[in-house]
Amino acid sequence: MTEKTKTEDSSKLDNILNAAQKRFGHYGLCKTTMNEIAADVGMGKASLYYYFPDKEAVFQAVIKKEQEEFLSEMKKHMNAETDASSQLKLYVKYRLDYFQNLLNLSKLKTESFFNSKPIFGKVVEDFYKLEIELVASIIQTGIDKQELREVNKEEYALLLMNILQGLRLIRIKYKALAEFDPEDVAYLKQNNDKVICMFIKDLRR
Amino acid sequence: MTEKTKTEDSSKLDNILNAAQKRFGHYGLCKTTMNEIAADVGMGKASLYYYFPDKEAVFQAVIKKEQEEFLSEMKKHMNAETDASSQLKLYVKYRLDYFQNLLNLSKLKTESFFNSKPIFGKVVEDFYKLEIELVASIIQTGIDKQELREVNKEEYALLLMNILQGLRLIRIKYKALAEFDPEDVAYLKQNNDKVICMFIKDLRR
Repeated sequence: MTEKTKTEDSSKLDNILNAAQKRFGHYGLCKTTMNEIAADVGMGKASLYYYFPDKEAVFQAVIKKEQEEFLSEMKKHMNAETDASSQLKLYVKYRLDYFQNLLNLSKLKTESFFNSKPIFGKVVEDFYKLEIELVASIIQTGIDKQELREVNKEEYALLLMNILQGLRLIRIKYKALAEFDPEDVAYLKQNNDKVICMFIKDLRR
Repeated sequence: MTEKTKTEDSSKLDNILNAAQKRFGHYGLCKTTMNEIAADVGMGKASLYYYFPDKEAVFQAVIKKEQEEFLSEMKKHMNAETDASSQLKLYVKYRLDYFQNLLNLSKLKTESFFNSKPIFGKVVEDFYKLEIELVASIIQTGIDKQELREVNKEEYALLLMNILQGLRLIRIKYKALAEFDPEDVAYLKQNNDKVICMFIKDLRR
């Protein structure tokens, strides 16, 4: 493959993912077809299948894109913030935004969000690993700068992630089949703020 | 009903619940029958139905019994501990014990635990209310004694409960169909200890 066709390929891929992201956001995974995605980018169905074997693969790629956006957004802002406490607060903030984006992809229906989780599978697992690394590296920065006390950074990174994930899970479970609305997000935000304050207070020297 | 038959009734009820608790603990809800419970207490099946309409009702009553035991155990020890911090630590400890007892009733199979949850329904809901009251009252004691800072006690009680519940839920989800083993309990305990230290540190004046 020449350089030129590689660039063409990657821009086509971008177009597909952007179109699919919108479709999933509007109609959810179940109600979106490969035909519609192909039509959105002015492409034949056969050409779309050149890039993705099925709708689920497109969905996975969209999830992956959201993850990459979250991580690069985080890294951008992390460089601007000097202390670990501010970076941890940023992480909590952007993590909630990312969660909202994921929910959006399943039309904010908590049930369908849960049902589609097995489809993510490996994508989610890989992301968790990157997430632990990210949070652990923030904690390490704080330890190095003597802002935070010496702790097992992976253990505390995982604890923070588990606490935040648990709070989201409980709220989703509580909503059952209902739509996750702005009130739920506000509630999560309120709890997250309390949690991160606690966490930082505990880790500060 | 005379006083005497009331006492007889309540002691028979105790016998039924004790026998059922053992049965559920050994064989789980699905594999236990009303016949077996009746036989265990030397009672005809028809007599058992005088007390409970079905197996699920017995199960609910057993759950309720576990809850009452947890709450009365807590209250006993709360009176012995003078400060709110120690009481909060006790709560976390006994809450995990209670969770283990519940898991035991479903034979430690996390999947069946989740599936049988709708059966608890109202019983669980009522319990959560008592639990919030309990934790909020500990926080209030701490505020009154100027051990803890002034916070919205219900808000923080619910936050602590949600965090602990979230950590349990994530661990259960992570295990999927597997049995919840002592290693999982140890992991939860480790996380719980970190969480309650954070929580107390944050609330202390």
